[in-house]
Amino acid sequence: MNSKSKVLISEVGPRDGLQSISTIMPTADKLKWIEWEYQCGVREIEVGSFVSPKVLPQMADTAEVCKGARRHPDLTIAVLVPNLKGCEAAIEAGAHKISIPLSMSETHSIKNVRKTHAEMLEEIARCVAAVEQVASSARPHFEVGLSTAFGCTIEGKVPEDKVIEMAQRVLDIGVAEVGLSDTTGMGNPAQLERLATGIWARCGEGALTGVHLHNTRGQGLANVLRALDIGIRTIDSSLGGLGGCPAAPGASGNIVTEDLIFLLEAMGYETGIDLTALLRTRKQVEDLLPGEAWYGFTASAGLPLGWAN
Amino acid sequence: MNSKSKVLISEVGPRDGLQSISTIMPTADKLKWIEWEYQCGVREIEVGSFVSPKVLPQMADTAEVCKGARRHPDLTIAVLVPNLKGCEAAIEAGAHKISIPLSMSETHSIKNVRKTHAEMLEEIARCVAAVEQVASSARPHFEVGLSTAFGCTIEGKVPEDKVIEMAQRVLDIGVAEVGLSDTTGMGNPAQLERLATGIWARCGEGALTGVHLHNTRGQGLANVLRALDIGIRTIDSSLGGLGGCPAAPGASGNIVTEDLIFLLEAMGYETGIDLTALLRTRKQVEDLLPGEAWYGFTASAGLPLGWAN
Repeated sequence: MNSKSKVLISEVGPRDGLQSISTIMPTADKLKWIEWEYQCGVREIEVGSFVSPKVLPQMADTAEVCKGARRHPDLTIAVLVPNLKGCEAAIEAGAHKISIPLSMSETHSIKNVRKTHAEMLEEIARCVAAVEQVASSARPHFEVGLSTAFGCTIEGKVPEDKVIEMAQRVLDIGVAEVGLSDTTGMGNPAQLERLATGIWARCGEGALTGVHLHNTRGQGLANVLRALDIGIRTIDSSLGGLGGCPAAPGASGNIVTEDLIFLLEAMGYETGIDLTALLRTRKQVEDLLPGEAWYGFTASAGLPLGWAN
Repeated sequence: MNSKSKVLISEVGPRDGLQSISTIMPTADKLKWIEWEYQCGVREIEVGSFVSPKVLPQMADTAEVCKGARRHPDLTIAVLVPNLKGCEAAIEAGAHKISIPLSMSETHSIKNVRKTHAEMLEEIARCVAAVEQVASSARPHFEVGLSTAFGCTIEGKVPEDKVIEMAQRVLDIGVAEVGLSDTTGMGNPAQLERLATGIWARCGEGALTGVHLHNTRGQGLANVLRALDIGIRTIDSSLGGLGGCPAAPGASGNIVTEDLIFLLEAMGYETGIDLTALLRTRKQVEDLLPGEAWYGFTASAGLPLGWAN
């Protein structure tokens, strides 16, 4: 790297972390967490998911959380939605970025959201239409997360051509962008490079700018490094890897924000995030969630002598 | 990567792992561990350290372990030595590969082995002379590990020019090769690339072929990926990250062999190691060391559906 390059960290802990644990964090605590990370310099936070409270009661207050988070003027408020109903609620709540996951494994899609690929594509088209009805000055960024893109726990290997083709089909519907999601933590750097460059070659370079990687088999930061190498500049991560991997006790789920920022800042990338302050925030959030497992190494080891960030 | 490329895993658990825990593993158990990993396809193992038994009683039987390990005909038996006395003992025991650590931080060197850089270079020269007295057909490979090359817990940042200069001085003495050691887990991929390419530019490409990385801040496999990218093909690692990081409770020390092999095999590198069998070996060694902390994610998550190795 010859010059400083900016990387956007999209903190997903309040969504992906909290939805993976049974504890329901009160709205006020979620807003504290969001404010603390904002104070550290985090500028995009996935604050919740507009999903049925019967399925995920932890996310029932997502509209209120969106509303509360809007007091931070330059914070991008991201949310996840499973369907049109969620998308409409997200628009109503004033979310800036709305993502809908589309599982590359059709078996996984049917099992998780009871929809075939054809049905999901129709649902996505309805979401696109809903988003387009918003005045352009307030219109949220709408993207599709290509989940299980690196492999599926039910189908096993997912053909790379299939992922690239699905990206094309989704973009043809009018979605702004797709994201690559290693939902199952099966990915490796070579695969990430093939998938991303394949999507760029087919759909253009603006089609994909971010990745959502898990650390299920310890490969998270190696995959991030390759994503950076090829020019990806938006990386999802979770404070303390909160939530772990429900399918794999002892393994973390999301990559850990603190360790990710260590990597980026040490290499000379600019995240705009004060890591020393973020390590304090981790402790504060830990105090709000007693008994949960926290992941990551930088928090245990501390920052090295001479660390400048 | 266009074609399969072989990578040598140098398993350091019986040395770096066992010297970092207080339990003293019986010689017969060390030999079982070595045999199990050998059966999995591991072909280089650092079996111990020829250091004073007063300092590290865990390593007191290193000569016996070397002798026992020699029954595996194509196994490279590596050992660590702190000085000439240790080097002579290693030669006597028939070790194939002898490494001596030289701390790039002189403060660290004085504190740990009570020797200045000038004194260490003299000691290394005496080791070179001892190795050269061995008949060429049986002569061990002698190398210097450039420890604290990525930073020091006492001095902080270690100038990269200093590391490159020390590599040159060591090679001038007649050492076969140097290795880059991230003893303190402070390294990042950009720094690794600068150090390695700097040493190659100054000393030739044969001067450095291996790295010894720690995972203290979770950066281990990202650093490995960059090492692979630039052509390094010998990687040290420890089964289950055994030993952790004595200076950082909760953080692992060495990178974890199982997670490393996942990375390599998934990317298409050839390690010659059966990962399924190695995960069984991990359990067997865990049983020999009750109560110790084990690290790594692949062992918890299991191999993905469709994994071929």
